[in-house]
Amino acid sequence: MSSRVLIVGRFQPLHRGHMRVVSDIVRGSRSIILGIGSAQHSHTPENPFTAGERVEMATGALREGGVSDFYVVPIEDINEHGRWVAHVESLVPRFSSVATNNPLNQRLFKESGYEVVTTPLYDRARYSGTVIRRRMLRGRPWKALVPAAVARIIDEIDGVARLRQLAGKDV
Amino acid sequence: MSSRVLIVGRFQPLHRGHMRVVSDIVRGSRSIILGIGSAQHSHTPENPFTAGERVEMATGALREGGVSDFYVVPIEDINEHGRWVAHVESLVPRFSSVATNNPLNQRLFKESGYEVVTTPLYDRARYSGTVIRRRMLRGRPWKALVPAAVARIIDEIDGVARLRQLAGKDV
Amino acid sequence: MSSRVLIVGRFQPLHRGHMRVVSDIVRGSRSIILGIGSAQHSHTPENPFTAGERVEMATGALREGGVSDFYVVPIEDINEHGRWVAHVESLVPRFSSVATNNPLNQRLFKESGYEVVTTPLYDRARYSGTVIRRRMLRGRPWKALVPAAVARIIDEIDGVARLRQLAGKDV
Amino acid sequence: MSSRVLIVGRFQPLHRGHMRVVSDIVRGSRSIILGIGSAQHSHTPENPFTAGERVEMATGALREGGVSDFYVVPIEDINEHGRWVAHVESLVPRFSSVATNNPLNQRLFKESGYEVVTTPLYDRARYSGTVIRRRMLRGRPWKALVPAAVARIIDEIDGVARLRQLAGKDV
Amino acid sequence: MSSRVLIVGRFQPLHRGHMRVVSDIVRGSRSIILGIGSAQHSHTPENPFTAGERVEMATGALREGGVSDFYVVPIEDINEHGRWVAHVESLVPRFSSVATNNPLNQRLFKESGYEVVTTPLYDRARYSGTVIRRRMLRGRPWKALVPAAVARIIDEIDGVARLRQLAGKDV
Amino acid sequence: MSSRVLIVGRFQPLHRGHMRVVSDIVRGSRSIILGIGSAQHSHTPENPFTAGERVEMATGALREGGVSDFYVVPIEDINEHGRWVAHVESLVPRFSSVATNNPLNQRLFKESGYEVVTTPLYDRARYSGTVIRRRMLRGRPWKALVPAAVARIIDEIDGVARLRQLAGKDV
Repeated sequence: MSSRVLIVGRFQPLHRGHMRVVSDIVRGSRSIILGIGSAQHSHTPENPFTAGERVEMATGALREGGVSDFYVVPIEDINEHGRWVAHVESLVPRFSSVATNNPLNQRLFKESGYEVVTTPLYDRARYSGTVIRRRMLRGRPWKALVPAAVARIIDEIDGVARLRQLAGKDV
Repeated sequence: MSSRVLIVGRFQPLHRGHMRVVSDIVRGSRSIILGIGSAQHSHTPENPFTAGERVEMATGALREGGVSDFYVVPIEDINEHGRWVAHVESLVPRFSSVATNNPLNQRLFKESGYEVVTTPLYDRARYSGTVIRRRMLRGRPWKALVPAAVARIIDEIDGVARLRQLAGKDV
Repeated sequence: MSSRVLIVGRFQPLHRGHMRVVSDIVRGSRSIILGIGSAQHSHTPENPFTAGERVEMATGALREGGVSDFYVVPIEDINEHGRWVAHVESLVPRFSSVATNNPLNQRLFKESGYEVVTTPLYDRARYSGTVIRRRMLRGRPWKALVPAAVARIIDEIDGVARLRQLAGKDV
Repeated sequence: MSSRVLIVGRFQPLHRGHMRVVSDIVRGSRSIILGIGSAQHSHTPENPFTAGERVEMATGALREGGVSDFYVVPIEDINEHGRWVAHVESLVPRFSSVATNNPLNQRLFKESGYEVVTTPLYDRARYSGTVIRRRMLRGRPWKALVPAAVARIIDEIDGVARLRQLAGKDV
Repeated sequence: MSSRVLIVGRFQPLHRGHMRVVSDIVRGSRSIILGIGSAQHSHTPENPFTAGERVEMATGALREGGVSDFYVVPIEDINEHGRWVAHVESLVPRFSSVATNNPLNQRLFKESGYEVVTTPLYDRARYSGTVIRRRMLRGRPWKALVPAAVARIIDEIDGVARLRQLAGKDV
Repeated sequence: MSSRVLIVGRFQPLHRGHMRVVSDIVRGSRSIILGIGSAQHSHTPENPFTAGERVEMATGALREGGVSDFYVVPIEDINEHGRWVAHVESLVPRFSSVATNNPLNQRLFKESGYEVVTTPLYDRARYSGTVIRRRMLRGRPWKALVPAAVARIIDEIDGVARLRQLAGKDV
């Protein structure tokens, strides 16, 4: 347990930038927990995919990447920051450190005694959920930016058409 | 996807009876989702373990049992049955059938168009969460009734002492 | 507005005893609001029907009974009695009195300044939701106890089979 | 049931543009359900009226318009789109199609198998809740834009003064 | 801060037994926090008084008892024990120990690293909320069992009549 | 009771402008209730302090100012304005008037029959939570703007560093 690392993100969708962070952690022989944040949100232009779809995508991507010691857990937002760490702790396996670049998460987990590490960003101009969703909306190529399992599931659920309709585009 | 099966239970804790049901499903070459129900409950005599602890136990047991194609997802209760199926659907990967002996779940998933199958019960006098928690409270042997990974995690989190204290027993 | 009367009940299902109360109120040339209480509950042996089904049944029964000046509004429970009256006031049209035999509602609406009237009970051994659901479960006649519109809708939604399955009976 | 149509709106307040849509539906001999959305909101510049006030206004307008086969049901927002259709289904009578111009509702009801129809907009420069509330704030005429029953109730509840105070205007 | 003690109770109503516990703590020159638990409940036979009424009673009693260094804070229940300590911490001033005889609170605060002390019970046959409410219902003397400030406020809010009506007694 | 005054604010943090309003009320020999609004929020740039920290600061400031007849009560937001007054009433001691400059609170408490008074603003360019938080972020002096007890507690909880980290500043 002592070397298990938690990462929390919305993963709308999970992309190759995320996978690089995962690889760095796993290379250190550490177990990893992917917390699927904002789990209650879906069907909006910023959050097109449901928590269940994101669990399926993340699990597929981790298996595809040869990672075996992982957990994928949806986490609903609570808007009471004073209880956020306890909320996360109650939902995921035990962990000892948190990888995050978000100032709020950095502060809250540090106040609760966790080791907090920042993660390097890999080519944010390409590997970013915002960029990928924008490419989907504009009909530009996006599949090379995500693991193959993610692209396959988005196809199966007709995800690009959903996103375009939610954004008020003709389908 | 078409052969993925959902099982929902509280898994307080997961025991060898659950593992028999899992084995039957997996033997049919099917993928499995364990929905950890009543995820918000913990620290009571009936629900001693947190969702996170139960995710960790279930994952450990499935790996120990050689199962590889699985998902373990905590699911909070909602007390509005008319929305239960939609709640579950939004949190877990796609599935086509539900294995349950609970009349309410049988009715709700059937009304929503899912295949519902009943599961055989394996020696309920021994393989039951209620029985196992009672044995823990009375100081009687219980480890043979659960997978080794489950027993190990309960030891690590000092689970029997927690249960005894919650039940008002001297520790 | 000054002569509008609120009645709150679960209406699982609405029966001829309820209709007698409604008739007494309407005969006084008064407008009536039926608040469908515990709106969030359905699919249990005590609350088999959804709020929407109960809205449809109640509306059908009132039209069948020749009542024209009515409102039917689902009201979810809140478990904070200090806010109950404000919750109801925010959801239904203005009213001046409340017809109820429930001590809690009598107290809460009286503390908020409403006129509270008790309603006579018509043959409780027959006209009671509990009695009617029990007859459904046991396969005994029940349709004469409810307005024709209610019986028709229960048939259309296969309500008796649902109730029997929820109660763990063979269907 | 097979020809019942659901319309969801905030109706702050219901205006003659809404009534045109209702007339078109009713002319097709169809039953109609008005879902009063954002039911929990009131007393803001964008949502001045309570759900109960809006139920009263809508019912008055439909009766005034000679419509008889209708339902008016308040629906609170839930911010979990994956459960929105189930939420609506649990609160209103059965329906077969949904009249909406909102992309999110179009997507969600279509994914759940409902017929979705768009509604023509009647002179949006005049018949719009935003326009009507702005006219109220600026002291300009607005009553011709809403059914008489709506104007009468707004007067009775002193609605314009409320709106002006909420917007920080002198009353 | 290091010597501030938290006591959580429902205080329905606060009685002389509670005041003995308070006196013992205050005599040790320590600051005290009274957490008014189940704050959302009122108007039931077991929880007749609102949180606000209980804040007023407790404050009056502490002042009457000559206590000056105190805090009285309502705390709503959350039914997720894994988050209970964080919930309490976010609502009350900093504290270092908890006085409680409740096994659940003992376990939860101990797991979070607080000093937990048990409190002696003073003549439970008389000094108990249950006993006092029962005496009120039966019309027997109860004022000697509570601080004068508590008795005065219960009189002012007509609390005994409320309790009797809620229990279905003639008033 | 008849002269008790309620003030609701976020008090992020309580400052000398608030204390002037309190002094004016207390000088009229009236009792005062400080409702700590948005109690559930903390750890954001606009709401850095928890409800508990704000209760501790406010109580310290009132004692420091020689005020003795006061109540300090955290109040969580509810986003249903139609129930706001009932929510507040259920949480705080009885009161007869409300001091507020907020149009919404003015409207809601007036509709519920309370006396509503506006409060003079004391040098808003200096005495404002926004101004004080901005000074903290920029490393400029702020302690003279708040009561000594407030400054002391902010120091003890390392509040300025928390605020700077939440705002994404180097600490």
